[in-house]
Amino acid sequence: MAWTILRNGRNREGDPIDVEITEGRIVALRSASTAPMADGEVDLDGRLVLPLLVNGHAHLDKTFLGTEWQPHVPGSSVIERIKIEKRLRADLVESAGDRERLLAERMIEFGTGALRTHVDVDAALGLSGLERMLKLREDLRGLLDIQLVAFPQSGIVRDPGSYELLEEAIRLGAEVIGGIDPIGIDGDVDGHLDAVFGLADRRGAMIDIHLHAVGDDAVREYRGIITRTRALGMEGRVVLSHAFGLGALGAREQEEIFNALAELRIAIMSNGPAGLMPPVKQLAEQGVIVFAGSDNVRDAWWPFGSGDVLDVARNIACRSGFLRDEDLGLALDLATSNGACALGLPTCGPKVGEPADLLVVDAGSAAEAVANPPVGRDVMRSGEWVSRRRLHTVSGPTNRRESPAQFTSALS
Amino acid sequence: MAWTILRNGRNREGDPIDVEITEGRIVALRSASTAPMADGEVDLDGRLVLPLLVNGHAHLDKTFLGTEWQPHVPGSSVIERIKIEKRLRADLVESAGDRERLLAERMIEFGTGALRTHVDVDAALGLSGLERMLKLREDLRGLLDIQLVAFPQSGIVRDPGSYELLEEAIRLGAEVIGGIDPIGIDGDVDGHLDAVFGLADRRGAMIDIHLHAVGDDAVREYRGIITRTRALGMEGRVVLSHAFGLGALGAREQEEIFNALAELRIAIMSNGPAGLMPPVKQLAEQGVIVFAGSDNVRDAWWPFGSGDVLDVARNIACRSGFLRDEDLGLALDLATSNGACALGLPTCGPKVGEPADLLVVDAGSAAEAVANPPVGRDVMRSGEWVSRRRLHTVSGPTNRRESPAQFTSALS
Repeated sequence: MAWTILRNGRNREGDPIDVEITEGRIVALRSASTAPMADGEVDLDGRLVLPLLVNGHAHLDKTFLGTEWQPHVPGSSVIERIKIEKRLRADLVESAGDRERLLAERMIEFGTGALRTHVDVDAALGLSGLERMLKLREDLRGLLDIQLVAFPQSGIVRDPGSYELLEEAIRLGAEVIGGIDPIGIDGDVDGHLDAVFGLADRRGAMIDIHLHAVGDDAVREYRGIITRTRALGMEGRVVLSHAFGLGALGAREQEEIFNALAELRIAIMSNGPAGLMPPVKQLAEQGVIVFAGSDNVRDAWWPFGSGDVLDVARNIACRSGFLRDEDLGLALDLATSNGACALGLPTCGPKVGEPADLLVVDAGSAAEAVANPPVGRDVMRSGEWVSRRRLHTVSGPTNRRESPAQFTSALS
Repeated sequence: MAWTILRNGRNREGDPIDVEITEGRIVALRSASTAPMADGEVDLDGRLVLPLLVNGHAHLDKTFLGTEWQPHVPGSSVIERIKIEKRLRADLVESAGDRERLLAERMIEFGTGALRTHVDVDAALGLSGLERMLKLREDLRGLLDIQLVAFPQSGIVRDPGSYELLEEAIRLGAEVIGGIDPIGIDGDVDGHLDAVFGLADRRGAMIDIHLHAVGDDAVREYRGIITRTRALGMEGRVVLSHAFGLGALGAREQEEIFNALAELRIAIMSNGPAGLMPPVKQLAEQGVIVFAGSDNVRDAWWPFGSGDVLDVARNIACRSGFLRDEDLGLALDLATSNGACALGLPTCGPKVGEPADLLVVDAGSAAEAVANPPVGRDVMRSGEWVSRRRLHTVSGPTNRRESPAQFTSALS
């Protein structure tokens, strides 16, 4: 359809709006007209019009989605759990490509327009995961914008060969160099961070580091990252994922570190964890970019999760005591505009002149959509509906699933 | 239908089962037959067969469900928030009865068979809420078993006349005397608890006390309750709701209090709060009955929530670090058998000889149903389907809703 008007929607504040779309772009956004509906117009019936969601942190390659239920196997340390994960993933009969695609499709149905996914890169797996993901990215182009992080899940210093693989991953098309717990995994803050920042600097890549430490270790890691970001002029290109330790800093360290994060535009990703978490509102008030990601979805690390970053925003809001509409609106920003900013994407609409990438949901305002994430969602990319009111369980006993080709065909 | 067999279901462990039902009762439970389907049999297609859920703590009378979105109005103290709630509820144009019924119907659709709901009783409201709830209970008889708590939201000592109203509430049909924060609201542990226990003892009622305190205040309140439960021989008839303070006891107090809770069968209700919560697994391992409730659903206190106690079980599991199937199974118990036990109801099936009260969901095992609460749910009461695969949003901008009469007609 080259032209349409979405009539009788609502904007974030709940005010009635019409959205006029021509050739896939928004050409007008105005107060809802009371004129009778005309041919080619669509009645949104008072539903909320949001930008598409930005899921800023996922691990598509880890999910067990689409398989029979896999009971969790505990490990006594992170390193042991990494080994267990390798074994469980190797034992699955279902293809990794199918599982990854299924989760990506679910994310599209939830209304996700952009996704950053970490892909394990290590000496054992090599670049096999990255190669699958590059293909998936191509297959879903125009439906889901995928940003790839070359993620050294097994460490860098302690995993010989991984440095070269990370570099090759960037050459092949990953945009981001990942890192993980410089002290906890590699036991070498400088070794780990020098590798990550050196590679990113040389290759012009962004950086996204998993940090789970708390206390003195966390402060050492934050300082190591801050120093290198400043020295290399990497403002706005570095993300700290999880950063639990930001929730338990002493007053002096907090002031020092929050200020540096704001100054250097180092963004903080949270998935609304079960325990200690970064103080989202305080960070936002001090000018730090905080954003949301769904993280693990039903995998060796975590049996929970659906891949819906709007539900993550709800959970972060709950955990942060966000009850007022203004705070619930901040929670929505975590899963939309703040995510776009952290990932270096164009800011979220809906705006005149931009592509008509829209999420239409059963809610009357942004606050309501966050507090009670709606089930019924219509997803539009460049003026075309790509998913409408899909309702499904995360899994089923008989592995019911849509054909992997459903979305590729939606664009044809 | 006087006779049927539900074929090819799965039990909690994921094993294939058939359920034979005659005159509303389960007459056989056996491994799934491989014989061809016969007339009058229903193919469950590998779906999970659970008992109906027990939602052990709700506030139907507080919900804003079915109204336009009501932005949260913060208050600086519990007493101020009680005042704000009174004003907000009084200002609503939608009838309280319709809102309460809508939430109760949602709970039936989620698969709830039994519900304990607290009803505000105070000098200002009198017994108006309780009278509505008694009518709702009658209307939904056979679909949802409702237990009523006469809840002194505004205190007892500081709210003259409430004591008499609580007594009258029991006379009219409430089964449980509620209480709330003896120190925080009434500022009088003995005064508050003497009133609650005295009334319950005299009237043969159960007791369910909201406790939000932490630290020394919490310990004083727990001891006051333990002493009176023992003195009055009220074993198995007392519930502590929330009891955040159980999550932060010193080692000596913890041993003393956990032992007493187990000995006196004082049960602990948790809704999986955002902050400090009782140590569910540790309590369960020490023989204390822990159970779940949905608590506030989109009301003046809390903008979140759907009324789905299976989702509460998921959240408790997340917050408690329950990753293994065994622990996820405990989380399911919180929302089924443990709830039944705490409320003094018959234990949960499915069992031969008991009513065919069943919840059939898209999951392969109990662990999967908790980790990823299924959307599609079929609900059976006494051998009749009362809700099938209902899928809906918690709210909609145009207040779309089913007719309040839908369930009453389901039984006719």
